[in-house]
Amino acid sequence: MIVDRDRIERRIAAAIEHLRGPRYSRSLRAIQRHAYIPEYMATLAYFTAELESLGFDVDFDPVGTLVARNRPVGTPVVGLGSHCDSNRNGGAFDGTLGVVVAVEVCRSLSELEIDVPLQVMSFLEEEASGFGELLLGSRVMLNDIPRERIQELRSIDDGRPFLEHASEAGFCPDALDRSGEALDDLIAWIEVHIEQGRVLQDAGVALGVVSGIYGYIHGDITITGRGDHAGATPMNARFDPVPAMAEIVLELERLAREAGADTVATAGEVDVAPRLINAIAERARLSLDVRSLDGGRMEVIVDSVTQFAVEAASRRGLSAAYAERGRAMGTGMNPEIVQLLEDCAEAADVPHLRMASGAVHDTLMVARRVPSAMLFVPCRDGVSHSPDEHANCGDAAIAVDVLVPAVCAAARSGTRKGRS
Amino acid sequence: MIVDRDRIERRIAAAIEHLRGPRYSRSLRAIQRHAYIPEYMATLAYFTAELESLGFDVDFDPVGTLVARNRPVGTPVVGLGSHCDSNRNGGAFDGTLGVVVAVEVCRSLSELEIDVPLQVMSFLEEEASGFGELLLGSRVMLNDIPRERIQELRSIDDGRPFLEHASEAGFCPDALDRSGEALDDLIAWIEVHIEQGRVLQDAGVALGVVSGIYGYIHGDITITGRGDHAGATPMNARFDPVPAMAEIVLELERLAREAGADTVATAGEVDVAPRLINAIAERARLSLDVRSLDGGRMEVIVDSVTQFAVEAASRRGLSAAYAERGRAMGTGMNPEIVQLLEDCAEAADVPHLRMASGAVHDTLMVARRVPSAMLFVPCRDGVSHSPDEHANCGDAAIAVDVLVPAVCAAARSGTRKGRS
Repeated sequence: MIVDRDRIERRIAAAIEHLRGPRYSRSLRAIQRHAYIPEYMATLAYFTAELESLGFDVDFDPVGTLVARNRPVGTPVVGLGSHCDSNRNGGAFDGTLGVVVAVEVCRSLSELEIDVPLQVMSFLEEEASGFGELLLGSRVMLNDIPRERIQELRSIDDGRPFLEHASEAGFCPDALDRSGEALDDLIAWIEVHIEQGRVLQDAGVALGVVSGIYGYIHGDITITGRGDHAGATPMNARFDPVPAMAEIVLELERLAREAGADTVATAGEVDVAPRLINAIAERARLSLDVRSLDGGRMEVIVDSVTQFAVEAASRRGLSAAYAERGRAMGTGMNPEIVQLLEDCAEAADVPHLRMASGAVHDTLMVARRVPSAMLFVPCRDGVSHSPDEHANCGDAAIAVDVLVPAVCAAARSGTRKGRS
Repeated sequence: MIVDRDRIERRIAAAIEHLRGPRYSRSLRAIQRHAYIPEYMATLAYFTAELESLGFDVDFDPVGTLVARNRPVGTPVVGLGSHCDSNRNGGAFDGTLGVVVAVEVCRSLSELEIDVPLQVMSFLEEEASGFGELLLGSRVMLNDIPRERIQELRSIDDGRPFLEHASEAGFCPDALDRSGEALDDLIAWIEVHIEQGRVLQDAGVALGVVSGIYGYIHGDITITGRGDHAGATPMNARFDPVPAMAEIVLELERLAREAGADTVATAGEVDVAPRLINAIAERARLSLDVRSLDGGRMEVIVDSVTQFAVEAASRRGLSAAYAERGRAMGTGMNPEIVQLLEDCAEAADVPHLRMASGAVHDTLMVARRVPSAMLFVPCRDGVSHSPDEHANCGDAAIAVDVLVPAVCAAARSGTRKGRS
């Protein structure tokens, strides 16, 4: 144990508790903060003050991603952080815990009087709650959203443009193209996040070392039949899309199971129209959420289930069509940083598990330019995006204990590489 | 051909067209009239005037069912009619055509100078659009709704009590118990209605002779699992209620097909909560609409699918429960009247089909006290409860041509029985 885990646990718990308060969340029942609302700006101000007290210069990218460094621009640094916005019915840990942990790593190093070149980041709006775009800050930074799309983004609250809100909040969206500069000096990036699943809890392990982040394909299959009277239409004269939808749901599950580990598929939305107890539906729809580390495997599932849907519908005299909503390719984490984190966990005698992340994170974007990895902290029953979300701050303190030597090593290694 | 079908077709078409007008429907796009609104009262006034011009005395039961006779109370009469309210997005034919046809039978007999003891009825609100209760008028008449339930009925429009609305419309709901007296003199009852299915259209036949009306059981099966993150939860760690729901939908279909003719089952409502593309649902629900002439067969399907649901859920570590919304037993039609209608159709050289009604009708209630039958007129593509609803008025004129000799024969036969 390099750090005093109990003391760090108390500090993390105090910070999380503080950021639940009315200054930092629109709702007291759930955490509710999204880009640019006063509670979000207060949260950025809180982290700014904490980091300045540790000797960091705090700056913001053109749309408001917090970028704090203890070295001048142009000096190689190790990056730590996450995001501090929430979904609209959020918990206190998703995202925020990763920024709090990053600050605690900085504080611990300061207390240990170890000077490591660091950069802490809190990405603008990861949860899409303000402007409807997932990973908004990190995608802007990686130039992953077409400029026209950015100009079309509107606030869910008031319908006014994203760029107008960014300006009003004091940022410089005119310099959008310069957002990527925040990554220029990073020689490594590590994000800590709650797991949002139950793998760690089920394994009884305090720390997950993330080896990759799943990509996803999101889409819908719509089956069109014929709406008819539920009583007056004999079974053999029906064109009911609901049983066809049922067959497709089961095939999707079968395909995902067949694909093996590190691939999942979910029909999370199901609906029918008209939705009447005494009417055969005219249309039925299921959503597809297919995720995998392996992009090819995702495509095989989507293609196979679409083909199955068309055939299953056709057997019943119906039609079926697939429409894609969006996709992102998954990414592996940097093997050297993953190994480093595992070595540090071993050295600290921390039971850990190598695992993939089924959820997307800002690190999916950052990893395109910077050698990256993630640490997962268990969350109770896998619950997230809910006021019931809970994580053990003791587990987060363990993450700090692993990160302190890890960032030292990463900085040494990166600096060597930078000099070679 | 006893009557001039072309002339009757034109008269029926004119009446239907007239009753589409703004005086008779709240909407001009769809027919929208339910109990006691001005458009409904205007429709009753229209039929009152038509029937008075044919020498009928028009009266109303305590809640507003129109009861018109050409004989004094206490004289045996043959009953004809249907209902003239619509669902809120209705067509011009459902219900109303049956009252229009009844009036045309009376008019034809008058033109032929045949004096038959008749009673025309237009039941109060069959479609549940005003007060949420199907077959409201006929169920009141048959004392099928508990008094407490009647007192609880509220207007969907303004939330005020049914009985208050009935009073304001000029009826005498205090005398509710006397509603059944309207059936006292009926020796037979025949309702004409559009089929609301495609059996007649598919068979290319102008007339259906209804041999029975299906009963129904309405209920819901709810499957409860565990809501989880769609990405972060491996396939083998899920408690997803959606695939279980899919299995139940398919089993329901299988059971209905296995039960054979005259039994149908439909999952018309399907929903999940939360309904998010990236979340495994916590709960899924399907509605059950099971119909058959045979009450035992309905119960077997509901019991079997419930047992299947519990087992299918249990195999996945989920729970499932069935809750019933309501049920009504089916009924056979009076064999003598059915035979009489078939004989009259034969005599008039009208191709016809004996069939069951999968939809419920006021006749389901009337048949409890009066020897009853129904005639179906085809409707285009089986569409009903929709502005697209359409029937051929020529087919309705054929029904008049069959009914004229049928009511004569029924009156003779009933009178003989009454005297014997």
